[in-house]
Amino acid sequence: MIKIALLGYGTIGSGVAEVLKVNKDSIAKKAGQELALKYVLDLRDFPGDPIQEKIVHDYEVIVNDPEISVVVEAMGGEEPAYTFVKRALLAGKSVATSNKALVARYGPELIRIAQERNINFLFETSVGGGIPIIRTLNTCLTADVIEKVTGILNGTTNYMLTRMTEEDAEFDDVLKEAQAMGYAEADPTADVEGYDACRKIAILTSLVSGQQVDFEEIETQGITDIEALDIQYAKAMKRVIKLLADSRRTEEGYCALVAPVMISKKHPLYNVNDVYNAIFVHGNMLGDAMFYGSGAGKLPTASAVVADIVDIVKHSHCNIKTFWSPEKLPLADYRKARRRFFLRTSDPEAAIEAAFGAVEYVRLPGVSGEVGVLTEQMSELEYEKRAAGLTGIRKMIRVE
Amino acid sequence: MIKIALLGYGTIGSGVAEVLKVNKDSIAKKAGQELALKYVLDLRDFPGDPIQEKIVHDYEVIVNDPEISVVVEAMGGEEPAYTFVKRALLAGKSVATSNKALVARYGPELIRIAQERNINFLFETSVGGGIPIIRTLNTCLTADVIEKVTGILNGTTNYMLTRMTEEDAEFDDVLKEAQAMGYAEADPTADVEGYDACRKIAILTSLVSGQQVDFEEIETQGITDIEALDIQYAKAMKRVIKLLADSRRTEEGYCALVAPVMISKKHPLYNVNDVYNAIFVHGNMLGDAMFYGSGAGKLPTASAVVADIVDIVKHSHCNIKTFWSPEKLPLADYRKARRRFFLRTSDPEAAIEAAFGAVEYVRLPGVSGEVGVLTEQMSELEYEKRAAGLTGIRKMIRVE
Repeated sequence: MIKIALLGYGTIGSGVAEVLKVNKDSIAKKAGQELALKYVLDLRDFPGDPIQEKIVHDYEVIVNDPEISVVVEAMGGEEPAYTFVKRALLAGKSVATSNKALVARYGPELIRIAQERNINFLFETSVGGGIPIIRTLNTCLTADVIEKVTGILNGTTNYMLTRMTEEDAEFDDVLKEAQAMGYAEADPTADVEGYDACRKIAILTSLVSGQQVDFEEIETQGITDIEALDIQYAKAMKRVIKLLADSRRTEEGYCALVAPVMISKKHPLYNVNDVYNAIFVHGNMLGDAMFYGSGAGKLPTASAVVADIVDIVKHSHCNIKTFWSPEKLPLADYRKARRRFFLRTSDPEAAIEAAFGAVEYVRLPGVSGEVGVLTEQMSELEYEKRAAGLTGIRKMIRVE
Repeated sequence: MIKIALLGYGTIGSGVAEVLKVNKDSIAKKAGQELALKYVLDLRDFPGDPIQEKIVHDYEVIVNDPEISVVVEAMGGEEPAYTFVKRALLAGKSVATSNKALVARYGPELIRIAQERNINFLFETSVGGGIPIIRTLNTCLTADVIEKVTGILNGTTNYMLTRMTEEDAEFDDVLKEAQAMGYAEADPTADVEGYDACRKIAILTSLVSGQQVDFEEIETQGITDIEALDIQYAKAMKRVIKLLADSRRTEEGYCALVAPVMISKKHPLYNVNDVYNAIFVHGNMLGDAMFYGSGAGKLPTASAVVADIVDIVKHSHCNIKTFWSPEKLPLADYRKARRRFFLRTSDPEAAIEAAFGAVEYVRLPGVSGEVGVLTEQMSELEYEKRAAGLTGIRKMIRVE
């Protein structure tokens, strides 16, 4: 029997306890032995809840108990998660975590400690919640040079953009709705500014390149500037606006970007709506692949955390190798990537064509004083140079 | 350095050699050591091809060479693949295979031999080509009770149905086109009659249930009966017809079915077109997930075969546990599954309503002497009982 300690009894933590309980028998079959939750670390008490008998308030109880071989970190944030996880690994206990902030910052160090001790540090749910993308990159796509990873990695913003599209609603209104539904937090900054998606694409780019990507270096734009009018333009072009986290291999190296992008029906992520997430991957041999599922939510995320535990139990004396060295990956300028650009501008057509040459115009009924413009494909550096010739640009949105 | 022998230098075999060559460096990094192809077993010679120096015609050379630790079987068919694979495993060599016929028939026995010898028998590409569904079921979805697996598992028929839909063409015409394009074989029976999809859903159902599913017991209907007129009815209902391989857990056990099904835009497999494959999975905790990619094709399939080799190398003294016992799984009657049904019938409305109660009618301009009927949801047993009351049914297609 494997004894587990759970750090944090919030949404994901309580989900892990629930999955372990509901699917006890099938999990024991897959893991080859029974899994038992021994401790739950939380500052709070839960009187009346059966979990109360497992609650401890002192981490020393867990880290010093030789019976505990697996620690599940579900607290979130960098501290004290980092200290607790590192101490667990140093004490020879394998760790499963859902904490993207922890993994984006300290991934290579924690992976190295686990490798040195022949134990495991798994973090499937740090990106894509219930979608098995980390394990897929680590164990399934190993024969490929991955040339492109593009994901809808944040459920809150995808829900908001879906509502804005379906209801022709403005950002502020759908944000209130999302908060009322529990899909957005009281302080939605990390989601709507793209910071959450940024950490996740940093993790994926690190895994794809095998080197450490500093998330602070990734150009990140959120969806706070997206208006109902932008979505009307997108609709007129038979496109939708999605917050994409994109990483691609160019001749100058990997470049990464988080930004709202207009995508067409042909794009594999076009139909990913509501709180769902999906990750598109292009390999030089595999071609296109796409992985879709619940990117967040208590039970889907907890299910994937428990799958990490099962993998840890199946590899009790065998480190599952993860290629992510602490060596920093210098990112190429994201403006080297080539795509089309959409802009709304009050410039006259002659000026637009002087700047961009042949373009497609998009005019919305009832909208005057501006025109929508869809450029040809070019690098973003080229776009910037050309756009400098115009004075009336109100908005630029990338197009794929 | 790991020395590999390849059995069969056809489409997939030559693809494996190509992937090993083109991505040599990145594969060596992921595997932790270099992979070298030592032998290629084929009846033919390839004079002028650099592969010729590795060609052997006698399997004894391979099975008796202690330097060979990994055998890749890419011959297809049950024999001599079974004999060769079994002898390789008994000689302590791990095996990666893309052979669905071999895996569907002999999976549990070959898995057991590998387990007993602490080596590996991997078969990722036997289902879904380049889509990592086997490893996902085995290592990622282990915390869930999988309640439903539905796949578009055959690229040939998906290509044909896509063409029929886009061009309003008849089966015979698109079959000729598919053959000319190399997407269908000269004898297309295994694809168009659903036999290929049947073996694949048998493998997936075995992995999900942990027991051996006999593919001969799965009700299998192909697409040979699908006419342009059926697709016109589907379009009128804003649906598409897809050949689905479906397996679901009911109160009486798992039931499986391969058949053309009309699916709506809300269905996750609606947008899977051309030769692409996709597999939808519903877990009791995870909820919905979907995995999409190239279900066939030389390089995508070869890429996944090589990923199996990398996994074998990473697990050189560690059997990757696969839960698939030889104990036979009794399948429940597929007619217990509940869905809606579409029928084309010449019966009068009064008779249709006497049989089925409330229905939706679908009438196509220019089509007389019959009407399209969409029933409410019911079990197929119930459908059969009710349909017996009509005399003019020309076609029934399931609807989801």
